[in-house]
Amino acid sequence: MGEFSLIQAVFTRRAAAMLATQPDSLVALGIGDDCALLNRLSSDEQMAISTDMFVEGTHFFPGVAARDIGHKALAVNLSDLAAMGAKPIGFTLALALPQADESFLHELANGLFELAQIHHCPLIGGDTTRGPLSICITVFGRVKRQQALRRGAARVGQRLWVSGQLGGAALAVQQLYANQTPPATALASLLRPAPQVFLGLALNGLASSAIDLSDGLYGDLRHIATASQVNVEIDLNRLPIDPLLEGLPFDAAMALALCGGDDYQLAFTCDDSASQTVSALSQSLQLRLTPIGKVVAKSAAPQVICLGPGAVPLSATWHQQLSAYEHF
Amino acid sequence: MGEFSLIQAVFTRRAAAMLATQPDSLVALGIGDDCALLNRLSSDEQMAISTDMFVEGTHFFPGVAARDIGHKALAVNLSDLAAMGAKPIGFTLALALPQADESFLHELANGLFELAQIHHCPLIGGDTTRGPLSICITVFGRVKRQQALRRGAARVGQRLWVSGQLGGAALAVQQLYANQTPPATALASLLRPAPQVFLGLALNGLASSAIDLSDGLYGDLRHIATASQVNVEIDLNRLPIDPLLEGLPFDAAMALALCGGDDYQLAFTCDDSASQTVSALSQSLQLRLTPIGKVVAKSAAPQVICLGPGAVPLSATWHQQLSAYEHF
Repeated sequence: MGEFSLIQAVFTRRAAAMLATQPDSLVALGIGDDCALLNRLSSDEQMAISTDMFVEGTHFFPGVAARDIGHKALAVNLSDLAAMGAKPIGFTLALALPQADESFLHELANGLFELAQIHHCPLIGGDTTRGPLSICITVFGRVKRQQALRRGAARVGQRLWVSGQLGGAALAVQQLYANQTPPATALASLLRPAPQVFLGLALNGLASSAIDLSDGLYGDLRHIATASQVNVEIDLNRLPIDPLLEGLPFDAAMALALCGGDDYQLAFTCDDSASQTVSALSQSLQLRLTPIGKVVAKSAAPQVICLGPGAVPLSATWHQQLSAYEHF
Repeated sequence: MGEFSLIQAVFTRRAAAMLATQPDSLVALGIGDDCALLNRLSSDEQMAISTDMFVEGTHFFPGVAARDIGHKALAVNLSDLAAMGAKPIGFTLALALPQADESFLHELANGLFELAQIHHCPLIGGDTTRGPLSICITVFGRVKRQQALRRGAARVGQRLWVSGQLGGAALAVQQLYANQTPPATALASLLRPAPQVFLGLALNGLASSAIDLSDGLYGDLRHIATASQVNVEIDLNRLPIDPLLEGLPFDAAMALALCGGDDYQLAFTCDDSASQTVSALSQSLQLRLTPIGKVVAKSAAPQVICLGPGAVPLSATWHQQLSAYEHF
């Protein structure tokens, strides 16, 4: 484990340096003891916690730059905090590595710490071990009690919004599997998604439910529909698809935009009365926010209904084909 | 991911069932949303957090029973809480699996949940993914502010104690590498260590520093010595070695007891005035607690000094050989 001690030293030093620049942090003790210690939250807060495992071959293609791996491993976790409307406190990192490759490790750390710095989310604990390359991050955030954006809080009549644009990451995945070189912007969507932490914070008290798009809009909206026991209707003509999808046939573009994961945008529901505020938010965050549908009815068999050309509901067969595509 | 949904359903159902039986829990929201939610601590508490990655081939021999894997993956994390004197709140589980083997998964869950139940530590969040078998657990606990048992809090003149007995797990590892069948008690020490959570809690306010023995007594005491900037002296004649080691030559037994990891006992330092209380604790917990040495002096070059037969300090060469054995 001698070589691994060196790795730990790199991460520990960078973590300590970053922690020292976070004066209003809840972190009472960072890396170096049996546990990290956090001070308690304010009286109106809860702690939000999420964990994700990131494995070579499953979550990223072999050969992806270490810096991108570091960025994305933290981004997907921060995205879960964003979907809850939580503000980052810190994260732990458990790392399995086949060997101690110093330049790989430094670049991995660069990707992690650059994103951590943006979101004031210091590394507070870790573990390094020998094994097939995988990264497990657990992230902690703080959120106002009663204001966490729950999947089960969508209400009938609310408008459904989505941030950013959809399908670029899925296009990159499709092309990489076909041994093609994706356009740079699609590759950037896949490799360096920006977790919508600032949006999540702004939606506190404004939106009722939210989810981050990790599996794809269609599947993730089904999670909201199921948890809230409602039907959700989306108008596909309004989807903010990535410009790269615009030349594709309708069904192909929709498959990518609806079933492609890795967008890490937020979908959320708001009362109609909040629409102007949401639009103003779009301006201030310089982030596209698009109303794409609504919560239409309570339902014991919740579903997501897609409206196609002419705003006409697409057939049951069309929806079934979409589900089949999802499992591909 | 269809088969993996079934796995998640098994863990989610068991987690929810267990959570329902923890009425005074801090857990406001368990598995099923983007994040888990915890209520805030009491005013005199801090949160302790630790994470560990557990990889097949590195941390456990291929073919080890799934139930034992589940037990140990959680045990090593709970052991970190114990070493801080923290009371478990809950844990997250990220699991990579090469395939969805239902009976393996049920047994893994059995091992995890049986231990979780003992320590009232519910599963509150998770992630399942395809990949080489590995388990990453992050565990959360609560500890009285100012009473966390820090590695750096050993004071000159304090007595050094260790719980349980040492070297059984190391003997099992040695024999397994030699393709021998270890005695059942040694195997149990290796596969099913009991994290000393109750001891850790009882040491709150009694001990000043503590560490759990994951790397081996000698190396772990060096962590205490370094963090506290002190020299620590241990009398090897007093080490509570596993009875299985008693027939071995002195050096061989000491190598196992001092450098073998996986014991997950606690070493801790207490003022002399606390000795009677510690002895009473041993009675009430039905757990052997042995005074094995003391904190002898402040030191800018902290070391652990071993006293051999006749309580005479062993040579520098002897200590160097021990260090070499550690890296083996």
